[in-house]
Amino acid sequence: MTIDAQALDSLDIDAGTLAIDDTTADLLFRAARTVNTFTDEPVSDEQIRAAYDLLRWGPTAMNTSPLRLLLVRSPEARERLAAHMSEGNRARVLAAPLTIVAAADTDFHERLATLVPHQPDARDRFAGDAEKRLGMARTSALIQIGYLIVALRAVGLHVGPMGGMDAAGIDAEFFAANHWTALLVLNVGQPSGPEAVRPRAPRLELDDAAATV
Amino acid sequence: MTIDAQALDSLDIDAGTLAIDDTTADLLFRAARTVNTFTDEPVSDEQIRAAYDLLRWGPTAMNTSPLRLLLVRSPEARERLAAHMSEGNRARVLAAPLTIVAAADTDFHERLATLVPHQPDARDRFAGDAEKRLGMARTSALIQIGYLIVALRAVGLHVGPMGGMDAAGIDAEFFAANHWTALLVLNVGQPSGPEAVRPRAPRLELDDAAATV
Repeated sequence: MTIDAQALDSLDIDAGTLAIDDTTADLLFRAARTVNTFTDEPVSDEQIRAAYDLLRWGPTAMNTSPLRLLLVRSPEARERLAAHMSEGNRARVLAAPLTIVAAADTDFHERLATLVPHQPDARDRFAGDAEKRLGMARTSALIQIGYLIVALRAVGLHVGPMGGMDAAGIDAEFFAANHWTALLVLNVGQPSGPEAVRPRAPRLELDDAAATV
Repeated sequence: MTIDAQALDSLDIDAGTLAIDDTTADLLFRAARTVNTFTDEPVSDEQIRAAYDLLRWGPTAMNTSPLRLLLVRSPEARERLAAHMSEGNRARVLAAPLTIVAAADTDFHERLATLVPHQPDARDRFAGDAEKRLGMARTSALIQIGYLIVALRAVGLHVGPMGGMDAAGIDAEFFAANHWTALLVLNVGQPSGPEAVRPRAPRLELDDAAATV
């Protein structure tokens, strides 16, 4: 049996390549699925804090860390958000245990004294260029959304990302008093059952998505 | 000793919250660092394939999967790329064992027959709207760059992302014959030593990056 197990291991294409175990690779990527319907099990602030404590260490341009999270919990806030989602996403936002509006802070320069203490002039260099800040904030915050989705899975949560929304409407509804801009809305929780996911769609092979020079 | 170990476990703030082990959480996020200088150890195609086989399963809008990877390996290609990097990044590109140009495919609709087989009209719906495709490709490919960075770490590689570049120059240099557009350049390999990383910069606390409604 020991020899058999070793023989099986030697057939694993990932043997010697993955630095994480197969269960984790499945949890974070290979078996993870976009979830459309959830159980009533609540998502705690502690779970979100644990996910944030992972994602916040991922790299961003100049350590600007512009991703911001609006945690939509109250029934009233859910209704306000649902009104700006595309029709197919409204019921999902109303029903999910937690919905997160992932946003970019276009005033991220106001945090640079904390984030980039070794460059005391960092804030002032960005203060006069709102257009540059918007571009930088969007770029790094979208990369951070990638970290966020993996991090939510790493705390055992399932995610249903939704791009179908009126982002400007969400900004006016929730972010008039600050300078956040909505990028993606994510439902979070535990899948209701097999019907919670669609049949899995194919992915590209590496040779169709990469080239070498 | 057993009791001591249990007592230590009970002090772990992540106990019961993380669904991955502490070593993996450190590898992927908490202890991972942006690396500026690398050893000569090569990065194999097999390692990149293993990382891709993780990241490709991450969700994208409509499963469009627009991220593309240009693997820059030859000395000639390195020189061509370095010419379009900001001055501080040129030597890094010339010295890293592998440099990847992470790009968005603005012609992603040509792959939708493979990626979205349940919507036979998907390709044609995007064929006439290059501006919409550019926006969608950038958004999803940036999120996929988040997956990419985590996935490279999951195969034991270290990453040095660089935004300081002339993206239009890179597009003209490498992507004139297809419709990719450069988003980020990443050096990949093993850190040369303690000098490979800068002192770690702080991150925001959750309460500074999130709000609840």
